[in-house]
Amino acid sequence: MTRILLIQGANMAWLGKRQPELYGTVAAAELDALVLERAKALGCTLDILYTHIEGEAIAALYSAHDRGLDGLLMNPAGFSYSGYALRDAILGCAGLAYVEVHMTNIESRGMRSALAGAAKGVIAGFGAQSYLLGLEALVALVGTEPAKKKAHKR
Amino acid sequence: MTRILLIQGANMAWLGKRQPELYGTVAAAELDALVLERAKALGCTLDILYTHIEGEAIAALYSAHDRGLDGLLMNPAGFSYSGYALRDAILGCAGLAYVEVHMTNIESRGMRSALAGAAKGVIAGFGAQSYLLGLEALVALVGTEPAKKKAHKR
Amino acid sequence: MTRILLIQGANMAWLGKRQPELYGTVAAAELDALVLERAKALGCTLDILYTHIEGEAIAALYSAHDRGLDGLLMNPAGFSYSGYALRDAILGCAGLAYVEVHMTNIESRGMRSALAGAAKGVIAGFGAQSYLLGLEALVALVGTEPAKKKAHKR
Amino acid sequence: MTRILLIQGANMAWLGKRQPELYGTVAAAELDALVLERAKALGCTLDILYTHIEGEAIAALYSAHDRGLDGLLMNPAGFSYSGYALRDAILGCAGLAYVEVHMTNIESRGMRSALAGAAKGVIAGFGAQSYLLGLEALVALVGTEPAKKKAHKR
Amino acid sequence: MTRILLIQGANMAWLGKRQPELYGTVAAAELDALVLERAKALGCTLDILYTHIEGEAIAALYSAHDRGLDGLLMNPAGFSYSGYALRDAILGCAGLAYVEVHMTNIESRGMRSALAGAAKGVIAGFGAQSYLLGLEALVALVGTEPAKKKAHKR
Amino acid sequence: MTRILLIQGANMAWLGKRQPELYGTVAAAELDALVLERAKALGCTLDILYTHIEGEAIAALYSAHDRGLDGLLMNPAGFSYSGYALRDAILGCAGLAYVEVHMTNIESRGMRSALAGAAKGVIAGFGAQSYLLGLEALVALVGTEPAKKKAHKR
Amino acid sequence: MTRILLIQGANMAWLGKRQPELYGTVAAAELDALVLERAKALGCTLDILYTHIEGEAIAALYSAHDRGLDGLLMNPAGFSYSGYALRDAILGCAGLAYVEVHMTNIESRGMRSALAGAAKGVIAGFGAQSYLLGLEALVALVGTEPAKKKAHKR
Amino acid sequence: MTRILLIQGANMAWLGKRQPELYGTVAAAELDALVLERAKALGCTLDILYTHIEGEAIAALYSAHDRGLDGLLMNPAGFSYSGYALRDAILGCAGLAYVEVHMTNIESRGMRSALAGAAKGVIAGFGAQSYLLGLEALVALVGTEPAKKKAHKR
Amino acid sequence: MTRILLIQGANMAWLGKRQPELYGTVAAAELDALVLERAKALGCTLDILYTHIEGEAIAALYSAHDRGLDGLLMNPAGFSYSGYALRDAILGCAGLAYVEVHMTNIESRGMRSALAGAAKGVIAGFGAQSYLLGLEALVALVGTEPAKKKAHKR
Amino acid sequence: MTRILLIQGANMAWLGKRQPELYGTVAAAELDALVLERAKALGCTLDILYTHIEGEAIAALYSAHDRGLDGLLMNPAGFSYSGYALRDAILGCAGLAYVEVHMTNIESRGMRSALAGAAKGVIAGFGAQSYLLGLEALVALVGTEPAKKKAHKR
Amino acid sequence: MTRILLIQGANMAWLGKRQPELYGTVAAAELDALVLERAKALGCTLDILYTHIEGEAIAALYSAHDRGLDGLLMNPAGFSYSGYALRDAILGCAGLAYVEVHMTNIESRGMRSALAGAAKGVIAGFGAQSYLLGLEALVALVGTEPAKKKAHKR
Amino acid sequence: MTRILLIQGANMAWLGKRQPELYGTVAAAELDALVLERAKALGCTLDILYTHIEGEAIAALYSAHDRGLDGLLMNPAGFSYSGYALRDAILGCAGLAYVEVHMTNIESRGMRSALAGAAKGVIAGFGAQSYLLGLEALVALVGTEPAKKKAHKR
Repeated sequence: MTRILLIQGANMAWLGKRQPELYGTVAAAELDALVLERAKALGCTLDILYTHIEGEAIAALYSAHDRGLDGLLMNPAGFSYSGYALRDAILGCAGLAYVEVHMTNIESRGMRSALAGAAKGVIAGFGAQSYLLGLEALVALVGTEPAKKKAHKR
Repeated sequence: MTRILLIQGANMAWLGKRQPELYGTVAAAELDALVLERAKALGCTLDILYTHIEGEAIAALYSAHDRGLDGLLMNPAGFSYSGYALRDAILGCAGLAYVEVHMTNIESRGMRSALAGAAKGVIAGFGAQSYLLGLEALVALVGTEPAKKKAHKR
Repeated sequence: MTRILLIQGANMAWLGKRQPELYGTVAAAELDALVLERAKALGCTLDILYTHIEGEAIAALYSAHDRGLDGLLMNPAGFSYSGYALRDAILGCAGLAYVEVHMTNIESRGMRSALAGAAKGVIAGFGAQSYLLGLEALVALVGTEPAKKKAHKR
Repeated sequence: MTRILLIQGANMAWLGKRQPELYGTVAAAELDALVLERAKALGCTLDILYTHIEGEAIAALYSAHDRGLDGLLMNPAGFSYSGYALRDAILGCAGLAYVEVHMTNIESRGMRSALAGAAKGVIAGFGAQSYLLGLEALVALVGTEPAKKKAHKR
Repeated sequence: MTRILLIQGANMAWLGKRQPELYGTVAAAELDALVLERAKALGCTLDILYTHIEGEAIAALYSAHDRGLDGLLMNPAGFSYSGYALRDAILGCAGLAYVEVHMTNIESRGMRSALAGAAKGVIAGFGAQSYLLGLEALVALVGTEPAKKKAHKR
Repeated sequence: MTRILLIQGANMAWLGKRQPELYGTVAAAELDALVLERAKALGCTLDILYTHIEGEAIAALYSAHDRGLDGLLMNPAGFSYSGYALRDAILGCAGLAYVEVHMTNIESRGMRSALAGAAKGVIAGFGAQSYLLGLEALVALVGTEPAKKKAHKR
Repeated sequence: MTRILLIQGANMAWLGKRQPELYGTVAAAELDALVLERAKALGCTLDILYTHIEGEAIAALYSAHDRGLDGLLMNPAGFSYSGYALRDAILGCAGLAYVEVHMTNIESRGMRSALAGAAKGVIAGFGAQSYLLGLEALVALVGTEPAKKKAHKR
Repeated sequence: MTRILLIQGANMAWLGKRQPELYGTVAAAELDALVLERAKALGCTLDILYTHIEGEAIAALYSAHDRGLDGLLMNPAGFSYSGYALRDAILGCAGLAYVEVHMTNIESRGMRSALAGAAKGVIAGFGAQSYLLGLEALVALVGTEPAKKKAHKR
Repeated sequence: MTRILLIQGANMAWLGKRQPELYGTVAAAELDALVLERAKALGCTLDILYTHIEGEAIAALYSAHDRGLDGLLMNPAGFSYSGYALRDAILGCAGLAYVEVHMTNIESRGMRSALAGAAKGVIAGFGAQSYLLGLEALVALVGTEPAKKKAHKR
Repeated sequence: MTRILLIQGANMAWLGKRQPELYGTVAAAELDALVLERAKALGCTLDILYTHIEGEAIAALYSAHDRGLDGLLMNPAGFSYSGYALRDAILGCAGLAYVEVHMTNIESRGMRSALAGAAKGVIAGFGAQSYLLGLEALVALVGTEPAKKKAHKR
Repeated sequence: MTRILLIQGANMAWLGKRQPELYGTVAAAELDALVLERAKALGCTLDILYTHIEGEAIAALYSAHDRGLDGLLMNPAGFSYSGYALRDAILGCAGLAYVEVHMTNIESRGMRSALAGAAKGVIAGFGAQSYLLGLEALVALVGTEPAKKKAHKR
Repeated sequence: MTRILLIQGANMAWLGKRQPELYGTVAAAELDALVLERAKALGCTLDILYTHIEGEAIAALYSAHDRGLDGLLMNPAGFSYSGYALRDAILGCAGLAYVEVHMTNIESRGMRSALAGAAKGVIAGFGAQSYLLGLEALVALVGTEPAKKKAHKR
């Protein structure tokens, strides 16, 4: 069964309370429920990690990768500004597919993500739905990379 | 019924022949079929325009908007470099929802799109599937903006 | 009789419908009438071209110049961003006086025009009146350059 | 009756003597006469201030604004380089319409004006006529802003 | 009673030992005593957090904000370089007044703070007294924002 | 008795009339009264100079320094943009303590002060209270620099 | 027989009339005759396209490439400023040899060509002879790439 | 006996698994053994800390410095991008000798280390041997700074 | 007899008191005596103006030029940072020779003079002697430009 | 008879051994033979200088120019990076025609030549043939500048 | 036996006399003795070249490489600023291992080396010991590249 | 007796022949005679070196410094662009006074000298007289630094 890790970066735990005009009123727990439901429908397992600390995200990623991770879905949020160490960690996980999501269209807010270059694809601007679209795309990607996937499971 | 226009920017007509290692082997006609089928499933009408000339895209957009366009799906492709006039045209279409798609993750290729700032959301990196995800997201967006939509139909 | 060409650049055909808070509610046809009336009062002939395509503007300019054009009045609009080829065409028309107009004060919007450096003068910020002031100034300029004018008519 | 202040910035007092190939041979006094005559024809009062000192221009502007100024016509000339304090003063005069004029097309000389962003409109490149066009445009602007004007006269 | 949180950013725990020629010889504990005494005199409660980890500061801020925080006093210290995630957290706390303090005049050392833009005000350069002045200013600010304060307490 | 000079830079004389949403409604005279009262309470003499002309501020500073000035409190206001000559004058007054104040948090408005690097400390963002906090800090600073102070009085 | 396409970019149709001090007095038709004669001598077929519109050049290139083009000779002229879409089209034509020519030494005029990076070689500064040297070099290049050439003809 | 602390920055714990083409196949534990053996040979004690969290490295450094640290050997790895707070901590440890090591020649990869400016010396590009050379150099440095060393031990 | 004007820019009146480690201990009056004596020896008249206000320098220059000035010797001092208006005034005085002097080698202090580009020559770094060398060079220059000199005296 | 000097800049002596995938396998001596043969066919004398030292190239150029040089053909190679002194020497040789050649298309490698601005024309990207085309172009250029040539031979 | 060339770049011959506070008091001859002794201990031959002229270094490198050089140890010193031609020469010596050394930590002095990108590794900041560590590392490197070494000896 | 070295940098040997409109018609030999005569009058010995090679200038400087040089007069000419190694050599000659001269005002030509920062003073713009003024200033400087001079002669 496909194994996915969802990392919610710095400030995401506050979802639904922080700047609702930007991020909507869906709380973190409600979002989790939506994404888990979709994961179930897509036939994959999904672990969710909320952290404000980049180093914790790095440790969690390596740990999951050691246990056979197939794909990473992440909203880097506050890590977008200078999360180059986390980006290096993603690049270091051979065979891992990474899809980056943002609730807002960060381009129209004049921002760039330090991690986007390490992603297979990026989805930005659709609020909570960014996660659902991203999960769908990630599961499809993992399904199309059988060779790599087997390689890192040995 | 929701009306969508898909614009394929400069060089997209060549799809399937140009740099298949980047853009895959799906030809333009095959892609059109996939997207039209999905549009049908989502219950919306879809017009498709291929053009290498930015000014033609502007004219087509204004013309469609005059006839009551709900959403624009576009892969600006070759217009990404300096398509500021087209961006202004999109911004000038009050009530229009724009979703931008790219087949590759342009961020990882060191590129930026001159038009992305005018979009509600951006989807990049999933090949032909970028269009399907984008259409899905666009239809959902249009459905959630009843006020604006009515306004521009008067 | 003095011969003037008015070029309305990319997006200007949409005047009156696009962002009226910026550009006012005078439609393209109404503006044409105002400018033609003023041209008549100033005793000059005036041709008007609307185009979204920079290359069409270039071709029209060369064609008019071959038939003995005295002055060019232009709102480059969407060509302002990177219309360097059109700028070169203007510079290549020996003896031609060019006056550039903008409806808004582009300086206060953080923009620069790629073509302004080729102009004798620039008028920006007065809405539809920018055209009338520009035409007045252009006719005065042409009247004061007898030597050059004759030169290119031979 | 509409009240206008014309400020001639640093180096303008020297007009007619300084670089006639750029600025023509009309002397400051002659230019004053031309502008005053046009002001009379347009039915407005016009005060003229020549100063090389930015702080003096600021003081004169505040003083005139206290007495009920309707519009400011200014060639910032030598203040164009770094006259940000004067720009702030203009922005601080609620309800004041500012039109900026230059005798040359500063854009084609590679210059920018630090004050242009605070203007309603800019006219550049027509020698002495820049002032006449600017005055005409300014009087028209003031006539179209009845609400603001009344506000600052209370 | 007004509730204030004081966050001492990366490296501040080392106060009194690190570069005394820059930061003086007052140790962290002594500084705490001074600030607590002043808080008491101003009639507000004060919690103090020392942390080298930006993510911990974010978590502490959200937690305090949930319990009804009125004002944040912070010396970002080592977070000044790239603490954009913490800045976003502050901006996300609706109704929170933030005052930033620095012991040295960072401007004269060629530094900028990534967080200063989120502050109501900044006080820099007065050593330990920066905290006392900052606390005084913060308490005054909170007292003058009754509307906002009530809003976030509901 | 400690001698302080307060310089109010370009545009400050207009206080209370200019952009009250930024600078509040306290007029210059009212502010003067507040600061003088606080100076009296702190046991120091205070001279106040309002000027729009940087060179006048320089002359006044040298003159006061010759008569034995202890501290300079200044809101450079319009001089902030390019007041490097005034900054050099401050640096040239050996033994003088300079505290810079701003009514708004200039950092959050994207501005920098050309003079801040010459200050012992900076206080920005607290409206009229910035002056009172600044005066307090300045008097404390002067009291703690006995050696320097004596030196320049000989 | 080797098949070559010559594209003359924006403004080239005006050759011989535009700025003869830069581009000489050879008219477009005369230049065509010179190049065709040389093509005949070199034993290759040569099609010539003049266009001011980048998108037309793209379409013509794809069309010719579909019919088995061996080499592209182009003076991008007005497309040099921002012809990135055309550059992508060239890069997308597998097996195509591109030689870029300019009549003037653009380097000494402070210009760069957006397309030069896609060329096998560049020849600039020799007026009409740039075309003849470029054609000669292009034919030689095509002759030395037998493998590639055959590949795209299948 | 000389006391050395070795800090392995973000991502180093993953050594031997991450990008072996860049970092080789020596695992973290094997590297530790090599370095400890060399430390023993050089007659110094060596503590090793692996952490992905910059703030933890800061805390560990201060703690070790309080107990009498002589030298710091560090591969900042993922902290290289923006570890300015850690750099400040190093600069704040009076009398501490810091040697920075990298397994790859970061210069040839277009990177710079934010911490290198605080080092006595830098060794980069020799894989696992970078640590051995760095330890050797650090021990030699500490031996030649008797005055400083004694100072911080009092 | 050759007529020279010496302008001492912002902060120069303070000479001998300000930063003697940079500018020496020669006071303004002593410097004046040295320069006047040398002027006498060289057979020219010398007027000296000290001003902190750029606009005053402009006015003085125009006034002197109207009365037949041959050469300008100036230490722009505080005007060096942004004295572009004064630079324009110098360029506007046809036939005037300008020599710029600085007491310190501003290049080695990382500074540039906004006015140096308008000078015939620059002498920097020799303290009070810079003035004497500059005067000598200026008198020699004026003597070698008979044609220009006569022209502006008519 | 036309006299040509060919200078092969830094690293060219190593031709055929250095990076053959970039520069081909033709050795320096073989290239010399090819170029000399072509020179003979074109009826001109050709001297060849290989040097790694920019100053030697300058001296050789001046020496040849003194003896009546008509044209300079040069591959600046390693001098391309910062050979501004050599560029000045070329500009200082009145009447000299300079053609610059490169074996590779340096533009596509992200390089610029510091000397190209001094050339009549540039040919890059054709390997050894760049020299033959360059010689041909240079001889044609020299033949068309009879006036200049005679001038410097007197 | 392994053959090493040590190049001491511009200014190194002056070692021991130049800025001893930066470079220590070991003279060039003493340093040579130290390095030769270490070379002997490591079982390799070592040639040493001191030169201020980059072109001489290039020639010496090619010459040594032709005779079968295994490794280059170099302190580029004065060549660090713009020694790109020398860098190209190193890159052109297939199979050559290059180790760069600096006596000071150039990073902490705000410098970068133009040649460091061509090195296998860099050692900076340890005075004379940088050479000994560098030699040790270089010999180890050469020993681990048997394939390459043999290749270039054929 | 004071010992001075005059270095004439790259391209100076060509003086009088190269661009006489910039550099005048005085030939190198004539200039030498003028400077030697002035040196005699000032009572100092003067050696003159012309070289196009920066490394030769470095060697000559060290050699002269070893024999007890008092002052260096130099026109870096072609070394101005990137002569950082020569600059370091000058800085490395303890007790040496360096005066830099240029025949033209390089500032007005948009150039900067890489060596000017190492000079005591700079004189630019007075043609051949720049040397005479520079020599005068240098001799005066050397005479006022008795302490330093003695130090380096021991």
